[in-house]
Amino acid sequence: MENGQGLRARLRHLVDSNGFSNLVTVLIVLNAIILGLETWPVAMEMAGPLLRVVDRVLLVCFCAELLMKMIGQGRDFVRQPWNWFDTIVVGIALVPSTGALSVLRALRVLRALRLLSMVPRMRMVVEALLRSLPGLGSIAGLLLLVYYVFAVMATKLYGGAFPEWFGNIGASMYSLFQIMTLESWSMGIVRPVMEVFPYAWAFFVPFILVATFTMLNLFIAIIVNSMQSIADDVARERSETATEEMKTFTHADHMELLNELKALRTEIQELKDR
Amino acid sequence: MENGQGLRARLRHLVDSNGFSNLVTVLIVLNAIILGLETWPVAMEMAGPLLRVVDRVLLVCFCAELLMKMIGQGRDFVRQPWNWFDTIVVGIALVPSTGALSVLRALRVLRALRLLSMVPRMRMVVEALLRSLPGLGSIAGLLLLVYYVFAVMATKLYGGAFPEWFGNIGASMYSLFQIMTLESWSMGIVRPVMEVFPYAWAFFVPFILVATFTMLNLFIAIIVNSMQSIADDVARERSETATEEMKTFTHADHMELLNELKALRTEIQELKDR
Amino acid sequence: MENGQGLRARLRHLVDSNGFSNLVTVLIVLNAIILGLETWPVAMEMAGPLLRVVDRVLLVCFCAELLMKMIGQGRDFVRQPWNWFDTIVVGIALVPSTGALSVLRALRVLRALRLLSMVPRMRMVVEALLRSLPGLGSIAGLLLLVYYVFAVMATKLYGGAFPEWFGNIGASMYSLFQIMTLESWSMGIVRPVMEVFPYAWAFFVPFILVATFTMLNLFIAIIVNSMQSIADDVARERSETATEEMKTFTHADHMELLNELKALRTEIQELKDR
Amino acid sequence: MENGQGLRARLRHLVDSNGFSNLVTVLIVLNAIILGLETWPVAMEMAGPLLRVVDRVLLVCFCAELLMKMIGQGRDFVRQPWNWFDTIVVGIALVPSTGALSVLRALRVLRALRLLSMVPRMRMVVEALLRSLPGLGSIAGLLLLVYYVFAVMATKLYGGAFPEWFGNIGASMYSLFQIMTLESWSMGIVRPVMEVFPYAWAFFVPFILVATFTMLNLFIAIIVNSMQSIADDVARERSETATEEMKTFTHADHMELLNELKALRTEIQELKDR
Repeated sequence: MENGQGLRARLRHLVDSNGFSNLVTVLIVLNAIILGLETWPVAMEMAGPLLRVVDRVLLVCFCAELLMKMIGQGRDFVRQPWNWFDTIVVGIALVPSTGALSVLRALRVLRALRLLSMVPRMRMVVEALLRSLPGLGSIAGLLLLVYYVFAVMATKLYGGAFPEWFGNIGASMYSLFQIMTLESWSMGIVRPVMEVFPYAWAFFVPFILVATFTMLNLFIAIIVNSMQSIADDVARERSETATEEMKTFTHADHMELLNELKALRTEIQELKDR
Repeated sequence: MENGQGLRARLRHLVDSNGFSNLVTVLIVLNAIILGLETWPVAMEMAGPLLRVVDRVLLVCFCAELLMKMIGQGRDFVRQPWNWFDTIVVGIALVPSTGALSVLRALRVLRALRLLSMVPRMRMVVEALLRSLPGLGSIAGLLLLVYYVFAVMATKLYGGAFPEWFGNIGASMYSLFQIMTLESWSMGIVRPVMEVFPYAWAFFVPFILVATFTMLNLFIAIIVNSMQSIADDVARERSETATEEMKTFTHADHMELLNELKALRTEIQELKDR
Repeated sequence: MENGQGLRARLRHLVDSNGFSNLVTVLIVLNAIILGLETWPVAMEMAGPLLRVVDRVLLVCFCAELLMKMIGQGRDFVRQPWNWFDTIVVGIALVPSTGALSVLRALRVLRALRLLSMVPRMRMVVEALLRSLPGLGSIAGLLLLVYYVFAVMATKLYGGAFPEWFGNIGASMYSLFQIMTLESWSMGIVRPVMEVFPYAWAFFVPFILVATFTMLNLFIAIIVNSMQSIADDVARERSETATEEMKTFTHADHMELLNELKALRTEIQELKDR
Repeated sequence: MENGQGLRARLRHLVDSNGFSNLVTVLIVLNAIILGLETWPVAMEMAGPLLRVVDRVLLVCFCAELLMKMIGQGRDFVRQPWNWFDTIVVGIALVPSTGALSVLRALRVLRALRLLSMVPRMRMVVEALLRSLPGLGSIAGLLLLVYYVFAVMATKLYGGAFPEWFGNIGASMYSLFQIMTLESWSMGIVRPVMEVFPYAWAFFVPFILVATFTMLNLFIAIIVNSMQSIADDVARERSETATEEMKTFTHADHMELLNELKALRTEIQELKDR
């Protein structure tokens, strides 16, 4: 038992060390480059088998690393969402990628995203981006609702005449997403629709206005959230500096008066003692 | 009379209760899903009549709910703009949707937007969005005027040669809206026009610059409005904290001096009494 | 002489009165509607000659109004840039619009823009927009220089193979403007160019990055300028309120001490007088 | 030795003088115009040889100017990055532009960018733009990583069926850049891809969302950085003004009390001396 505990403590110490995480970072970058080279026919012809072998070896390394972390950190491992992320992107390569799952092969490059979890600055940026999401919940919910309502309406109104674009609710949502990004919305979609339904602009122009105005407010919400905390920090810091300065200043004045009063008291004492 | 009043009060109590609004929210979500399923051929084949019956039942529920609210809240009902919104989107389904009005069928899904009026957080977001509109009045008016002037000019200049795009003032406004969203403005519209009128760029490029610059300022106006109130709140809070702290601090100094003076006075009193 | 002076003073009083500017505003709106109706074939068939006559009468009214302003305001008339604007947009209709100048007919609708100079709120918005321009001078200059350099390079590199897009410096500037607005830049322009010059992306992608990054900074400069003055106003107002409050507070403390000291002095005086 | 030193000092004085830099600025503008005229066939026919001669003369002038700066400023010349920039853009014209390097001819117009290094205000704007870049490092790194991962995945998934768009990692990166700018992303790329791979939207829509959200945060980071320093400046200045005002005010109060106390002391002294 003692021995097992000691092993775990030593493992934990190892996986938490800078050297270990630097080594893993280098392996991830190496793996990212190899996965990139595998898409380059020239490299595959020249060193295809070698690249595959190195990729396998690196995969074994990552599995060993995660196993060491699991054993070393125990329950703490499960609590860290980043560990879940690491386990999933490494685990993808272990699923047999045959038949319908052959798409999983392409997902193996997601392993390169482990850089996000290994490099502390990247991790901070991603965590900052993710932290800004919950504050957007209400507006995003509103956007999704507006989306759903317009998609159902578009399917009912134009699904019959334009099955490719509005044939079912999924197609409608995709087409409305395209329209919201303003890509070919008029020449590609709305003008052809208007040839059959001359008043289609009364559906699509309001959708564009509502969707872009809501998107805009989503965007403004992020800016305003960021600014609020900054304005707060700056104002607090400044007012603390100013308060401290005023305190020092008024205290000097105060001590001068106090000393003057004490001197006065001494003199009166002398007067009394006479 | 007493009885009627009691009934109204009880009804009002009921419609204002959390349980009631939660039930209505659930019914709205259920209705939204059913209206979505009605656009899915597989679901219609399997359970079309059932879906239609449930939709009818839910419509009756909403009518009953609004009637209860009308009776319960009396005049207050009319004062709430959200109630107007609820009444209209439910009322659409009661209009016979035959012939020219068959488009109203598609509008029945607007009922899902009642979620906006039932979920308090959604309501707040929508009200915040709407509150930001009046402040934009002047710039929006300017944009509309610029729009109108350019639309009339485009109709006169290019209406003859390109009737599909600029044939009348409505077509011109639609085309200018498309150009303002930058969708296919050059390859789709301006380059073909320039083949007939080589100097057309001198009309469209200034329009794009003026329209996007004005739009940009519309957008900046929203950000600046939001920031102003935030900056004001932060600054007030901070300066109040700082003032409070300074007050506590200077008051402590003041009390020390005051006590010293009082002690001095007592001693002088003693001197006098001697 | 006295009489002439009196007439001018009365004229000035008249053109500066609210009633006069309201009347002119109504006439401008009426003229805008008529110029719009002139683009509508149905209206022209039914009341074409009437519309033309009303347009002529309104033109005479505007000329009379400007003449009255010129006489009434004298030198002040020339100093107001808005008056120059009014004179030009009204004057356009007086130029004989035959032959090559027939395009001036379409410009007559610019008269509707006089609303901007007549409605005080509109005037403020436009003046605010124009005031934000000089602060952008440096970045706009940078953008123009980048533009010019890329246009010359594009003409030399691709002018031979794609004369329609890059045949001369004007065509290149137009095409680069289109590319900067991201309209069909890849599918419409760069992919075809890349079929002849495979490395053309190394010219266009940097151009897009530089141009959009500079545009972005132009936009940020406007936001930041607006915010700076707001932050300044808010901070000044707040710090003044806080200072005022602290002054009142410390002054009350001060008066208490002063009174105490004065009482002390009186007692010592009494002691001395004994 | 003395003589050489004196020559260097005089040269340095010359190249640092206003007259010298104004002359160089004029020559740069002249050169920019000439390089522009060289793309205009009419000008080349009329004055082609003259333009080429003037261009050569100006090139000699610039070389002489840089040589004078090099000698005059000595080591300081190498330390200024702007001097490197000047040397490179002038040096381009000295490389023999034959054969594969004929593209360098088009790059000669880069010399016009020397305006950026000569006009102090332009220089400040460019330096401000460049200073904002390092703060964006983390987010830009994140964006590049996301880009690389998606490019590898796109090549593996769609490279076989759409070699023109996703045939190799370079083509994929270009296509993903186009998709990120939202140009023809749906009608031009994703809809055709979806005809072969119906679930391609599950790859491209998340890419668009992640890429634009990250871009948005890049943009917000610039705004927030600019605002932070401004808010800080404004708050410091304001709090200093307020502190100064409070100091003056409390000091006046303090002096009044102090004088009162001193008067008291004198009187007690008199009492003692009696």
